[in-house]
Amino acid sequence: MKKIEHIGIAVKDIEASNNLFELLFDKPHYKIEEVESEGVKTSFFKCGPNKIELLQATNENSPIAKFIEKKGEGIHHIAFAVEDIYQEIERLKSSGFRMIHEKPKKGADNKIIAFLHPKSTNGVLIELCQDIED
Amino acid sequence: MKKIEHIGIAVKDIEASNNLFELLFDKPHYKIEEVESEGVKTSFFKCGPNKIELLQATNENSPIAKFIEKKGEGIHHIAFAVEDIYQEIERLKSSGFRMIHEKPKKGADNKIIAFLHPKSTNGVLIELCQDIED
Repeated sequence: MKKIEHIGIAVKDIEASNNLFELLFDKPHYKIEEVESEGVKTSFFKCGPNKIELLQATNENSPIAKFIEKKGEGIHHIAFAVEDIYQEIERLKSSGFRMIHEKPKKGADNKIIAFLHPKSTNGVLIELCQDIED
Repeated sequence: MKKIEHIGIAVKDIEASNNLFELLFDKPHYKIEEVESEGVKTSFFKCGPNKIELLQATNENSPIAKFIEKKGEGIHHIAFAVEDIYQEIERLKSSGFRMIHEKPKKGADNKIIAFLHPKSTNGVLIELCQDIED
């Protein structure tokens, strides 16, 4: 794992949270993106080598809607950048970790991604991600 | 804010979690440290420019014990590295953020730190930290 690529934060109102995080970082978000398949609207802030991804549900079946219902707004997941996501999935599975996605799928921000099951990682929802090369 | 310095993860059993995160990162932790004033035992892993800090309560009044009781194991806080923590506290206060610590205090890993109140930051517990220069 190369670095923390981003931290995902579940929010109720992405417009209000954009304003808040703009004040926090003293600069505006650099991108918004809707990921229809996940039922989320996202907004990204840069912080040096890392990013913060705000996530708002766009429908009530979205994982973000369910997360907020259960735990309230707050940190939703940590994403680690990896060199080779296929190899990393195999390594983690052989170490006993449980994957939500055994095969990477398309995520936001031009990446392929795979989540680990939080039951096998101390309650922490972990995403692996790798840039899609053009 | 320069980067995500570390993510703090609340765990029940730091020995078991050390083994788990050693498998996850494919390398051992590089440091353990007890912060008596906070009632925590910590363990640090490097991940490129970032760190993961595991936190186990050493007594039942520890903030980590209370966190786990309320929310279970999982991500506890995000720490951002800042250039000048005194200036950053002033900037954030004047932008309407509420500080838990209005003055920095000594934290783990040779740093001075200050926490923002999660009520003013979308439910996210945020730490500012700055290296103590020798």
